[in-house]
Amino acid sequence: MHPMGDPADETHKTKETDALSSSQGQAPHRHKVGIPPRQNLFKEFKSLVKETFFADDPLRPFKDQTKFRKFILGMEAVFPILDWGRNYNAAKFRGDLIAGLTIASLCIPQDIGYAKLANLSPEYGLYSSFVPPLVYAIMGSSRDIAIGPVAVVSLLLGTLLQNEIDPIAHPSEYRRLAFTATFFAGITQATLGVFRLGFLIDFLSHAAIVGFMAGAAITIALQQLKGFLGIKKFTRNTDIVSVLHSVFSAAHDGWNWQTILLGASFLFFLLIARYIGKKNKNYFWVAAIAPLISVVTSTLIVFLTRADKQGVEIVKHIKKGINPSSVKEIYFSGEFLGKGFKVGVVAGMIALTEATAIGRTFASMKDYHLDGNKEMTALGAMNIVGSMTSCYVATGSFSRSAVNYMSGCQTAVSNIIMSIVVFLTLLFITPLFKYTPNAILSSIIISAVIGLVDYKAAILICKIDKFDFIACIGAFFGVVFVSVEIGLLIAVCISFAKILLQVTRPRTAILGKIPGTAVYRNVQQYPEATKVPGVLAVRIDSAIYFSNSNYVKERILRWLTDEEERVKGDYQTQIKFLIVDMSPVTDIDTSGIHAFEELHRSLQKRDVQLVLANPGPVVIDKLHTSNFANLIGEDKIYLTVADAVAYCSSKLTEEP
Amino acid sequence: MHPMGDPADETHKTKETDALSSSQGQAPHRHKVGIPPRQNLFKEFKSLVKETFFADDPLRPFKDQTKFRKFILGMEAVFPILDWGRNYNAAKFRGDLIAGLTIASLCIPQDIGYAKLANLSPEYGLYSSFVPPLVYAIMGSSRDIAIGPVAVVSLLLGTLLQNEIDPIAHPSEYRRLAFTATFFAGITQATLGVFRLGFLIDFLSHAAIVGFMAGAAITIALQQLKGFLGIKKFTRNTDIVSVLHSVFSAAHDGWNWQTILLGASFLFFLLIARYIGKKNKNYFWVAAIAPLISVVTSTLIVFLTRADKQGVEIVKHIKKGINPSSVKEIYFSGEFLGKGFKVGVVAGMIALTEATAIGRTFASMKDYHLDGNKEMTALGAMNIVGSMTSCYVATGSFSRSAVNYMSGCQTAVSNIIMSIVVFLTLLFITPLFKYTPNAILSSIIISAVIGLVDYKAAILICKIDKFDFIACIGAFFGVVFVSVEIGLLIAVCISFAKILLQVTRPRTAILGKIPGTAVYRNVQQYPEATKVPGVLAVRIDSAIYFSNSNYVKERILRWLTDEEERVKGDYQTQIKFLIVDMSPVTDIDTSGIHAFEELHRSLQKRDVQLVLANPGPVVIDKLHTSNFANLIGEDKIYLTVADAVAYCSSKLTEEP
Repeated sequence: MHPMGDPADETHKTKETDALSSSQGQAPHRHKVGIPPRQNLFKEFKSLVKETFFADDPLRPFKDQTKFRKFILGMEAVFPILDWGRNYNAAKFRGDLIAGLTIASLCIPQDIGYAKLANLSPEYGLYSSFVPPLVYAIMGSSRDIAIGPVAVVSLLLGTLLQNEIDPIAHPSEYRRLAFTATFFAGITQATLGVFRLGFLIDFLSHAAIVGFMAGAAITIALQQLKGFLGIKKFTRNTDIVSVLHSVFSAAHDGWNWQTILLGASFLFFLLIARYIGKKNKNYFWVAAIAPLISVVTSTLIVFLTRADKQGVEIVKHIKKGINPSSVKEIYFSGEFLGKGFKVGVVAGMIALTEATAIGRTFASMKDYHLDGNKEMTALGAMNIVGSMTSCYVATGSFSRSAVNYMSGCQTAVSNIIMSIVVFLTLLFITPLFKYTPNAILSSIIISAVIGLVDYKAAILICKIDKFDFIACIGAFFGVVFVSVEIGLLIAVCISFAKILLQVTRPRTAILGKIPGTAVYRNVQQYPEATKVPGVLAVRIDSAIYFSNSNYVKERILRWLTDEEERVKGDYQTQIKFLIVDMSPVTDIDTSGIHAFEELHRSLQKRDVQLVLANPGPVVIDKLHTSNFANLIGEDKIYLTVADAVAYCSSKLTEEP
Repeated sequence: MHPMGDPADETHKTKETDALSSSQGQAPHRHKVGIPPRQNLFKEFKSLVKETFFADDPLRPFKDQTKFRKFILGMEAVFPILDWGRNYNAAKFRGDLIAGLTIASLCIPQDIGYAKLANLSPEYGLYSSFVPPLVYAIMGSSRDIAIGPVAVVSLLLGTLLQNEIDPIAHPSEYRRLAFTATFFAGITQATLGVFRLGFLIDFLSHAAIVGFMAGAAITIALQQLKGFLGIKKFTRNTDIVSVLHSVFSAAHDGWNWQTILLGASFLFFLLIARYIGKKNKNYFWVAAIAPLISVVTSTLIVFLTRADKQGVEIVKHIKKGINPSSVKEIYFSGEFLGKGFKVGVVAGMIALTEATAIGRTFASMKDYHLDGNKEMTALGAMNIVGSMTSCYVATGSFSRSAVNYMSGCQTAVSNIIMSIVVFLTLLFITPLFKYTPNAILSSIIISAVIGLVDYKAAILICKIDKFDFIACIGAFFGVVFVSVEIGLLIAVCISFAKILLQVTRPRTAILGKIPGTAVYRNVQQYPEATKVPGVLAVRIDSAIYFSNSNYVKERILRWLTDEEERVKGDYQTQIKFLIVDMSPVTDIDTSGIHAFEELHRSLQKRDVQLVLANPGPVVIDKLHTSNFANLIGEDKIYLTVADAVAYCSSKLTEEP
């Protein structure tokens, strides 16, 4: 238990110090830099593939099992319900029942409103809350996610689809295109999952999503002004300028005071309920139940006062009955195939991003493992089935998942409960929505999307990482001032730019010795660290690849020039050795080797010797293969910066 | 001079060891992790911009100068000839004269051939060797580059342009489009240079270029079979299958034995000369002069035997006189503007890649500094001027630059000499080329492009980096079997995929203590390194960003699971501490912080404590800003892994 108590520990240091104090110039004793056993190409490739696609080691449970057991495990992997269903009990059902009823009461009014964002009739929103949750319950592995249509995806789908075809002039073609897009959204998601390419969605950074979501929320809220103010002529653009222009140009004749009164009072009620639910977690149900209460009350009010005759717009008609089949409606050929595919891929990716973020958050809160790729397969399957049963793209909803979690859901059974409630609604209750005023639906949507504006996260991002903040703000303004697609494009581009900047301009640091230790650290971080006269120690903080090899070389030479200028004139401290600390350099490619060869040549001309410290396993292997280790001399490669400095100092005292 | 001879060095180690051997469990003395002084936002941003765009510190000489001196320096920066021209002398001129004459003799026959690759009349090749070298000599700073048309860019331009417009049916529109493309190639280059975006071309990796160049060389050589075999009907595709099909289907009637005899004998002569030049560097001039000898001899042979009457194709007519103005020929509006722009950007980038590679190679060989962005501005200006004087895209030629260097060129004056020779040729000699057989031009091109197949580099790449090799081979096969554009696209895509893979799947390593030291290293590289019981030390080898934060978290937990399974059942060695060595983690963003928070939460549930070692300046700052340092406890952050282990060990002995 005392691995470091070994007195042998001292040997190394003592010898080093001895060599330094002696002027006989004997090279100090040093530990050799390890060269790992060469792996064969196949093994190397296998491990690369494994880390890229199977980073979470999904096949671990299959190891050393019988064939039958493997089959069972395989089935359980595809249909997790077979696994958790066996341990299901009454206590869990109680939690799921309550949670299911709560999210159902929340989702029904939301669905009707969200369908409008996608330019579809209200029943399609309800359809999408019936079939997809059932499929997900069988195949998904998140216990807390609430499946159904969501605001942002509905808006995105609506915007992208109306660019292709007019929803008012050609409603049936538009609907068919929506199913086609949903089908391809599902295919995209399932493909990413099956081929384990789920990591691709990690390329949309958290910061960009925060900005995008907030922008989408604002845009959605602005869109609701139409229903909220009872405006008849409204722009089809989503940017803030067009929308406000529409609103104010309709002011003299378009606003309907009955609508506004109704909408405003219920919005006030909803916001109060929301506030209470936020303030005290025990009253979260107040916020959860408020939308349903609003719908019921306002419908009654309109029915009793016949306010619809005074210009209050009402839902009028929702088709009764459950989802009809839509297999034959999907475009599998013609020009709409390509358009549907394009829209589907984008909507599918965004839906995936949202569902994955939700799944991860709650899995981490309850500490269970979630296989991202398996989740994607489940979501994909659910949307493929959905596209054939008159549903549009469904995914996990932020707000409803939170309510689901807080209502005490235990498993995906809460989604089944919700689905049953929606099923009953479709069969029996839809006619009752006839007198529901659109203004209430708008108020419900406004109060729902407010939660997507996560200004606290934005403040934290600003404090932690300025570049992230730019991505966040860029996505936000892109969505608000231009359009959803442009906002998304900005978010993706800034995210990529950040990655590229990181690999193009890696950090470098000058190292100094921390007094009282044998440790060398960045002198900027540790101002007390002292440089060693005659020696410049530099650390490169990244793998050296073609994208940065040239920069790294020039940056090192610039450090050297700076340092030489600083000590100019003083022969004693003239730089004779350049130590490059390779600890963080995890890999080097052919361009990197070339850059080092050029660096070596430049240094020779300046009469400075190149010494390397602590190259990693891959790097040392490549230094040998490329013969660079021989070029600079094997005795110029050390295990630590301290060892390298010891060598240099001994050489300096030797030949003053 | 004995910075490490200080006995204080020992203090740190001794105390650490004491703490370990003592069981009183006192926390060992440790050096605090430094928190660098906070920089303000503006300063941070400024330094980011500086490292990104002004990495080579081009404004250094301007510091602390008078206004007049700054003006002079500025003029010298734009026109380097003002700088080196002052020290020009007769000795240098002698070198330049010989070099200039040599490359002129090489470039004239090449130019005529290359113009054909670009589907232009021969005189345009010569034009492009007259004006651009003059502009470059005034503005460029490479001393060794030889400017003019080159094979790969000519082929690329020819392929891309004939996709837009048929060069045989519409020769004058085709030519106008070529000038338009040249103009935008120049604009692209100058823009990259002026806005200091030169680093963008680093994204095409060395390996991809090797593959692309070799593929282009094979394609160019195959194209020469037309002239070489005297085939009349030839495919316009460049892939190997189409070309060989053309060649063999023309076999029964299309091959002309006189042409083949002529071509083959001179190709043999050229290859012998090339071999001699390569074998003995002193005879490089044999290879350099051979093309001109071939042209003169073969022209005489055809003139005397009138072989052109037997079906030997000859050049026939080259327009006499120097470059006419082509300012009015450039399309500044209409549909061809966009097409020319597109082609120009691609051709400009490839031309830039080639010139930059050449410039860097020779600058490093002669050890002078080359400002990449300034070079790009010069090349851009040269092509803009070129496009207005009937030239097509010119750049640095690999083969001619090497000859220039070996002939002892001293400055860009060798380009001026070459330009003068081409000028005289255009004025007086072009009619003499009338009887030059096309087969000889084909032989010259074949022998020139052979040098682009750098199989030694490919072998080295394969040995050093398998992923690079895939990029190399991918680009090669793409060019040879499909087309130049597809090969280029493959090269760019694979290069990007490599970067993305690097940032998505960073390496991680388990650390062990190297016996006899206080140093912790990767146990795979140092099998003798020992793990400390009860403690798992892991190192993350990359900045933690949104693209990898989730992977990093899961990978660490996987290491922990693996380790826990290994030591299962043994209470003594049960893992209680997880040390994360942050040395290589240069940066962390909000997603990274979230991942660490989740990791911390998961570890708490597993009853394992998280300890951090050596966070860098940026990371420690962000850990504090985000309050994560407080969350895990300030006493869990150490300067070195050894310190962290000492802390863990002391805790372990304290509470068994």
